[in-house]
Amino acid sequence: MPRYRCTVEYDGSGFVGWQRQAEGRSVQGAIEEAIAGYCGETPTVFAAGRTDAGVHALGQVIHFDLEREADPFRVMEAVNAHLWPQPVALLDCAVAEPDFHARFSAAGRAYRYRIVNRRAPLTIDRGRAWQVAVPLDAGAMDAAAQRLVGRHDFTTFRSSECQAKSPEKTLDRLAVTRGGDAITVEAEARSFLHNQVRIVVGTLKLVGEGKWTADDVAAALTARDRSRGGPTAPAEGLYLTEVRY
Amino acid sequence: MPRYRCTVEYDGSGFVGWQRQAEGRSVQGAIEEAIAGYCGETPTVFAAGRTDAGVHALGQVIHFDLEREADPFRVMEAVNAHLWPQPVALLDCAVAEPDFHARFSAAGRAYRYRIVNRRAPLTIDRGRAWQVAVPLDAGAMDAAAQRLVGRHDFTTFRSSECQAKSPEKTLDRLAVTRGGDAITVEAEARSFLHNQVRIVVGTLKLVGEGKWTADDVAAALTARDRSRGGPTAPAEGLYLTEVRY
Repeated sequence: MPRYRCTVEYDGSGFVGWQRQAEGRSVQGAIEEAIAGYCGETPTVFAAGRTDAGVHALGQVIHFDLEREADPFRVMEAVNAHLWPQPVALLDCAVAEPDFHARFSAAGRAYRYRIVNRRAPLTIDRGRAWQVAVPLDAGAMDAAAQRLVGRHDFTTFRSSECQAKSPEKTLDRLAVTRGGDAITVEAEARSFLHNQVRIVVGTLKLVGEGKWTADDVAAALTARDRSRGGPTAPAEGLYLTEVRY
Repeated sequence: MPRYRCTVEYDGSGFVGWQRQAEGRSVQGAIEEAIAGYCGETPTVFAAGRTDAGVHALGQVIHFDLEREADPFRVMEAVNAHLWPQPVALLDCAVAEPDFHARFSAAGRAYRYRIVNRRAPLTIDRGRAWQVAVPLDAGAMDAAAQRLVGRHDFTTFRSSECQAKSPEKTLDRLAVTRGGDAITVEAEARSFLHNQVRIVVGTLKLVGEGKWTADDVAAALTARDRSRGGPTAPAEGLYLTEVRY
């Protein structure tokens, strides 16, 4: 029974998120139905990151098992044909080791958050970035971001619905850069808490507009209290860019 | 009677193009209606580039006259509010000299064409780039592109519907670059013929896949015959990026 590993890209806008749910269209469900449509088999598809509703992926990684052996390129092409016209596509496909697990074997995840810092509403990037009208100081945001790098109790930056056993995580990298009116936040860790990147971005935005200092961010972290963190930034700016194994 | 000059961004997907037409939604019509909605005046809006259906703009430039003087920032904000939720937005607005004309004063125009060179269908970039499955040699495309730079009779690269008096144009720059699976074609000229960039891209794609040589491109140019050029690349990959004055 071969195991297949694929990189997946999707526009999260119209989905309830990665995970299959009682109601609504999920990315997982879309891929599982496409596999069934292609070969009649109904494997469970596992993903490295269970992205929320509206969150996009450029480099999600999944695995699934099929009873019958098939050429991975053919699997990719057939599943993509069955996914069409939904905005989900397999970018590659390979046979994986039997013990490979998209979620549990992952050694690191990278997310990108896109802010467009301007007065004008978004047009081409609508649903693909967070438009922030108030001018943001990306340098101040980046300086404050460094206070969050390292191993910490991230309770302040964790959704109240987070199911992780421990709020302790090691944030390996958090970088804020600006190019024109585009501000990009890059975050890397072995794993993240629920909404962690979005709450971090919502908090750094307060720094960018001058309402908070870097010390305020550090104090919020130390408080270990979600109510001391900034608001959760919108899902539409967030991209799962890469998973390392 | 003040004249206003604005930079405009739009997603061309749902529009019949820049120009108002008997049927369908045009970008020009959307902006004219937004101005009327804001202040009751009904000026004609002129643009630097009359983009076709499906073509996008990151830096279109327009002008229009209003009877009553108003603060340009307020004009921009009000027009954007009336444009919403259509994917058209004014990025800036300033009072222009009375003899400024968005189209006739323009000294140069820049277009970008986005190709995504991969097997997988587009998801996040759907309607925003041309997906080409066959592997393309961007270096060969760039070398062939240089044969088109300079002053030439571009009849081969001109739509049969083109209304320009002369097919002679000076192409100042044509560059093809690759970053990962993204291939970008940048084109700069004082002005372009109808469909010129799209026919150039459709022709360079033949070079990229090895069907044509750079000499074939040069021969097609010399032939001054539309039927000797490549196919017209899809509108959805094309962006008007900048207008110089």
